[in-house]
Amino acid sequence: MTENLKRGDGLPPAMTRLVKELSRLPGIGEKTAARLAFNLLNRPRQDVIALAEALLEMKERVGLCSECFGLSDTARCSICGDSERAHDLICVVEGPADLMAIERARTYNGVYHVLHGAIAPLDGIGPDDLKVQELLARLERSGGVREVIIATNATVEGEATALYLAKILKPLGVKTTRLARGLPAGGDLEYSDSATLSSALSGRREL
Amino acid sequence: MTENLKRGDGLPPAMTRLVKELSRLPGIGEKTAARLAFNLLNRPRQDVIALAEALLEMKERVGLCSECFGLSDTARCSICGDSERAHDLICVVEGPADLMAIERARTYNGVYHVLHGAIAPLDGIGPDDLKVQELLARLERSGGVREVIIATNATVEGEATALYLAKILKPLGVKTTRLARGLPAGGDLEYSDSATLSSALSGRREL
Repeated sequence: MTENLKRGDGLPPAMTRLVKELSRLPGIGEKTAARLAFNLLNRPRQDVIALAEALLEMKERVGLCSECFGLSDTARCSICGDSERAHDLICVVEGPADLMAIERARTYNGVYHVLHGAIAPLDGIGPDDLKVQELLARLERSGGVREVIIATNATVEGEATALYLAKILKPLGVKTTRLARGLPAGGDLEYSDSATLSSALSGRREL
Repeated sequence: MTENLKRGDGLPPAMTRLVKELSRLPGIGEKTAARLAFNLLNRPRQDVIALAEALLEMKERVGLCSECFGLSDTARCSICGDSERAHDLICVVEGPADLMAIERARTYNGVYHVLHGAIAPLDGIGPDDLKVQELLARLERSGGVREVIIATNATVEGEATALYLAKILKPLGVKTTRLARGLPAGGDLEYSDSATLSSALSGRREL
């Protein structure tokens, strides 16, 4: 048993390389990456090929919709291209994941506008780093937009962005609304924070 | 706002496919898969290609060493092919991850034998499903093996496997040892379970 063993990790280089690449993913440490790599090693060949192809295809095809800046594999995304949706109702979200969450709720029938971020002065992100000019240009271009729903996150950055948008949309005469704030479904009064309770109280509605 | 919206998740098909493939990995649910996919979308092109290539290369190249059945991209792995290691000292482990853990400790200078599992009658796994015959054949083939260290896990299955191996190795006259059981490094007596404390007591050593 020597003391100065300076070897690798006992894995073939191709395995080490995969572990390294996997551990660059967010929230995946080296141990999780090794577990994933061992799982992939024991999976049928076509499963691994399917994953590799999905990665390449995604990078090859997915870009931003020229109208709403949501993710799309065509110049105009399937939502913007859907004639059954209300094109005079625009929901403004911070990112594609937010769009996805609203789509999952299956009750919204308008279109979207993806900002790709939120105003965060401490991180040096201002309105010019977001798709704000594009939103204004879109409103001007398409004319009769009935309503803009601001659906930014209920965070400091999301609030700041909502207030900024409300300010610049006001002169255009477009109706601007924000998502309701209050108790989440299944929410327990006892465990709600004060900010949520304040919103729920001030936003109360007649039964 | 219609009720019968039966649309997708608002993602382009290439993205949905990637999320689906990623969510087949162990411990990765659909939300984590979406988070990983969004991260990959925003990463430089070459990063994604590197991951895809690492996946394909791993599946293409990595097989089992013909001698120890550890992972290898050559017929004989780098450990079995290393003339500076003690080839008369064989450490028997359940899987490649265990081999990796021992290599990381950097104090073991012998070779390995990977069983690829442990005896688990309830799951229908018996000695014939493991590389046990291969171990016996190896001991016979290589002759003068000095010691076999049984390094199976400290679980019910690992224990059963260790006892079984000890039984069949005894007639061969090979010295057979097991890893010590006791308090782990940094272990706190107060929070140790009874089984660990019993092992630590019965295995106590003179100072």
